[in-house]
Amino acid sequence: MEEEPRTEISELGEFGLIRHLTKNIELRNESSRIGVGDDAAVIEYDSGMQTVVTTDLLTEGIHFDLIYVPLKHLGYKSVVVNLSDIYAMNATPKQVTVSIAISNRFSLEAISELYEGIYFACEKYGVDLVGGDTTSSLKGLTICITAIGEVKPDHVVMRNGALENDLLCVTGDLGGAYVGLQLLEREKRVYLENPEVKPDLEQQTYIVGRQLKPEARKDIIELFEQMQLKPTSMIDISDGLSSEILHLCEASEVGCDLYEAKIPIAEETYNMALKFNLDPTTCALSGGEDYELLFTIAPGDFDKVKNNPDISVIGHITAKEKGAHLITKGNNVHPLTAQGWNALLKG
Amino acid sequence: MEEEPRTEISELGEFGLIRHLTKNIELRNESSRIGVGDDAAVIEYDSGMQTVVTTDLLTEGIHFDLIYVPLKHLGYKSVVVNLSDIYAMNATPKQVTVSIAISNRFSLEAISELYEGIYFACEKYGVDLVGGDTTSSLKGLTICITAIGEVKPDHVVMRNGALENDLLCVTGDLGGAYVGLQLLEREKRVYLENPEVKPDLEQQTYIVGRQLKPEARKDIIELFEQMQLKPTSMIDISDGLSSEILHLCEASEVGCDLYEAKIPIAEETYNMALKFNLDPTTCALSGGEDYELLFTIAPGDFDKVKNNPDISVIGHITAKEKGAHLITKGNNVHPLTAQGWNALLKG
Repeated sequence: MEEEPRTEISELGEFGLIRHLTKNIELRNESSRIGVGDDAAVIEYDSGMQTVVTTDLLTEGIHFDLIYVPLKHLGYKSVVVNLSDIYAMNATPKQVTVSIAISNRFSLEAISELYEGIYFACEKYGVDLVGGDTTSSLKGLTICITAIGEVKPDHVVMRNGALENDLLCVTGDLGGAYVGLQLLEREKRVYLENPEVKPDLEQQTYIVGRQLKPEARKDIIELFEQMQLKPTSMIDISDGLSSEILHLCEASEVGCDLYEAKIPIAEETYNMALKFNLDPTTCALSGGEDYELLFTIAPGDFDKVKNNPDISVIGHITAKEKGAHLITKGNNVHPLTAQGWNALLKG
Repeated sequence: MEEEPRTEISELGEFGLIRHLTKNIELRNESSRIGVGDDAAVIEYDSGMQTVVTTDLLTEGIHFDLIYVPLKHLGYKSVVVNLSDIYAMNATPKQVTVSIAISNRFSLEAISELYEGIYFACEKYGVDLVGGDTTSSLKGLTICITAIGEVKPDHVVMRNGALENDLLCVTGDLGGAYVGLQLLEREKRVYLENPEVKPDLEQQTYIVGRQLKPEARKDIIELFEQMQLKPTSMIDISDGLSSEILHLCEASEVGCDLYEAKIPIAEETYNMALKFNLDPTTCALSGGEDYELLFTIAPGDFDKVKNNPDISVIGHITAKEKGAHLITKGNNVHPLTAQGWNALLKG
């Protein structure tokens, strides 16, 4: 690392750094009227559209570990996790603001790498970086991203609309990000004990990718629009399937039956979980960070999703009094509990 | 401090903390359609309005020092500095999102105090808290606030509209926040040397208030609307007068003459600056954190501001080739240079 060029941020100053990081921005959305460079950004959506806003704050040592997370991936993921929240409202993200606080440990080259990932995500998802703040911290890296999007008022899907007999659906597969994290943590321990040993990720590119470079389900929101399917409730999976199901049930004042056998788990996730002596179902239920969409649909909409390989029906909504339950592969019934990844308890 | 109740955040968990902090929210703006509690907030402004967005990230040890900044004041100021950026676009803030990262040093009582200040600012300025993120940090407190507002498209005032012969105006008075900071820093040193000595703020309530509890110039934006006065350019003063003037001149591709004798400085600021052996003009030029508005108006609009005690005409815009200059009380001409408070260089 010593050989790589290192430019101190202090050589540029705050305004120089902002200029450097934003000089190549080209606004791609017509709604991005004024971007970086004034006191605030100005956005104008088509008349009748609603504005959707979400924000996330990520801190070094809690949400990411720079020993195994490349800065470019971190930038990418920081944007994606926010976009995921916009999609979870059945809305389309159009703009982001990015604020970072950095200690003098970070060089211009390091921060440029972070922004490469940020811009890469913006390009892939068609959003504009329109503002932010760049400042210093006494220690570590902090990233705060706000995503802004648009939605037709009658398209908004909240957490509170699930009704009895609705089908509980999830996109993609679950648990991969968590098992990927276990693998990265193992290699970190090996590395700290002996920096000469090269990391052995065992060609587990899928689960490592799920952890380091998750994607938000833009495709599913577009599919809903095409199929004219409006879920009755929706949430994205950041904390783990069981925690998110409980959020939906609580907001909608309903219960649910979740079938273990129906939970989609990728083969690579399954096998690696067993290698770590972890129960694959527990990884899917409590692992989190999959950024898949969990949603409910009216029973009459089953035909629209039944043949879609990206959507699994994993259960159904019941009356509130019945509570939320997991029906295991052996047909045992357990109350569903949230043991999701809780940033505050980890801290 | 030992006697005060202390509830650990970990006793509540993230969701418990969010519930505690947001349980009393009542949305006051019709445009705040969905607030805290879903994946994202939903906002709907009247048709034809544009959306204005700004964000700021504040980190402990760089932007604030909890030795002399009460948490309630910090919460208040964190909101106000963002609202100030919205007003600086000639827009009206309506919503904020608030994200915080906290180490386990902070109790529930401490965070509740911070939010008291946040809600107090929201109430005073008529904005709704509609979202955010609450997470942990390894060290210290970080606050990231995004403010969202609305503006009629033809009301937007940017930095780049100043024209030759326009008058350069500023609201309120300058330098107070900086001199207030010097006083607080002095008392901090005294306290650290001898915790028994009570802080001697010398009844300097005005300048201490300017530092600890600044206000954003909502009143001026309302006045512009009443008077049908549209500035040609505008910016808020966070980094110091000279730095902000240079931003306006650069964006507008103009020069300017600034008259030292016209810079508004409160008597308390002036006297305390001298006590600290500081030049009051330098405090006004470079101190920053005054959150006053700096703007330019067409010469024909002079009558609209000339008798307003809250607005001072401090200079005029010249051709770009002439550059930006300060004309001192002794009629010397100096090039204007930015020595504003620069968070990155301080860090």
